[in-house]
Amino acid sequence: AIVGALTGLSTGPLTGVRVTLTAGPTREALDPVRYISNHSSGKMGYALAQAFTDAGAQVRLISGPVNLPAPAVDALVQVNSAQEMLAAALADPGDCFVGAAAVADYRPATVADQKIKKQGDAIDDMTLALVRNPDIIAQVAMSRPKPYMVGFAAETQALLSYARDKLVRKKLDLVIANDVSRPDAGFNVDTNTVTLVDQHGDKALPSQSKTSLARELVNEIAQRYQAHAKKA
Amino acid sequence: AIVGALTGLSTGPLTGVRVTLTAGPTREALDPVRYISNHSSGKMGYALAQAFTDAGAQVRLISGPVNLPAPAVDALVQVNSAQEMLAAALADPGDCFVGAAAVADYRPATVADQKIKKQGDAIDDMTLALVRNPDIIAQVAMSRPKPYMVGFAAETQALLSYARDKLVRKKLDLVIANDVSRPDAGFNVDTNTVTLVDQHGDKALPSQSKTSLARELVNEIAQRYQAHAKKA
Repeated sequence: AIVGALTGLSTGPLTGVRVTLTAGPTREALDPVRYISNHSSGKMGYALAQAFTDAGAQVRLISGPVNLPAPAVDALVQVNSAQEMLAAALADPGDCFVGAAAVADYRPATVADQKIKKQGDAIDDMTLALVRNPDIIAQVAMSRPKPYMVGFAAETQALLSYARDKLVRKKLDLVIANDVSRPDAGFNVDTNTVTLVDQHGDKALPSQSKTSLARELVNEIAQRYQAHAKKA
Repeated sequence: AIVGALTGLSTGPLTGVRVTLTAGPTREALDPVRYISNHSSGKMGYALAQAFTDAGAQVRLISGPVNLPAPAVDALVQVNSAQEMLAAALADPGDCFVGAAAVADYRPATVADQKIKKQGDAIDDMTLALVRNPDIIAQVAMSRPKPYMVGFAAETQALLSYARDKLVRKKLDLVIANDVSRPDAGFNVDTNTVTLVDQHGDKALPSQSKTSLARELVNEIAQRYQAHAKKA
């Protein structure tokens, strides 16, 4: 460890592996003051970024707006919208890409330059036109050389079938399935319960703190990454 | 001051006055994970809450979701949506009501019980039906006895005409007009520049830190509140 520290080299299982990781929510602007977002705190992604660094990886963290201290990473890229996150991801997808961000599926079709005013007292209802955001992880999976692709599935129902569908449809190597309806898992809590889903089957991990889970997940990912790298 | 501390009495200009103050954004749920919100940090409202307490007022702070330490107030009521904020405001509007929250004008017409899934790859656009939220400050202004009513106008254009319109239309006593398009004012910055608008005219205050501005605003409000209370 002392030699590693002195020479700048690490001896972890992911030494020299470049990991690009997205974390946090995205914010999709309606106008200069309003936006659509979600309850992602970024805690799981930031804990993963730290655990990847501890495992020797060279981490590039692409983060939506969160209220967390910056983890020890090689590069931290701060973004707001899904479109900004996509551009940052494609700029350098790494050897292993981990999509832990909770990306907004839709954004407002138009962004007003000025704050939208209420439309008179007579108008109680309005509709907001939305357009589909780019599918960041699916687009990164089409880049060549293709990174080892790790996605998350955060669902409130039918978790494992959604996760397996996501694995196949988006051409991922591993999906970390996260039942966000459990009180001990998901957004804005410090513990999490996940199941790993890949071509070999499912593996449930015990409920634990996000910090502890991040270390376990990085070990699981490192094993799969090494096996995948040998085959390639 | 020592006597005040020992007896629990304060000697500030608002001693014994009950101030109800809203602060921060509201979040309007689309489903269990997604919401519409805005860039209000709550800093101005929290600085006002502290300054009102320092001026001797008995402060009830109704706060949307923010990342700020709780100020020294008599009561802190935490809410998410505009509907929750309205209920908390009407429950006890105080002798002086200050609406510093950035309340969402609209909320989704329906809130899904489960996370909304993308609607198949063929569907790139969707519309979101929105309904008007209750106008909290206008509803509080209809409560009797009517509190001394202080509103904020955060605009990116035509600031003073909007502020004066708000004063009259919502039957307020004072509007604090805030040009959020200025780089030294508004959301998520630590300084602010405002103009006071009431029946007597306009008064611009110099740009300054939100903490310093809060003290000046509380003095301005206290003078107007005392004059108003004498007349009543």
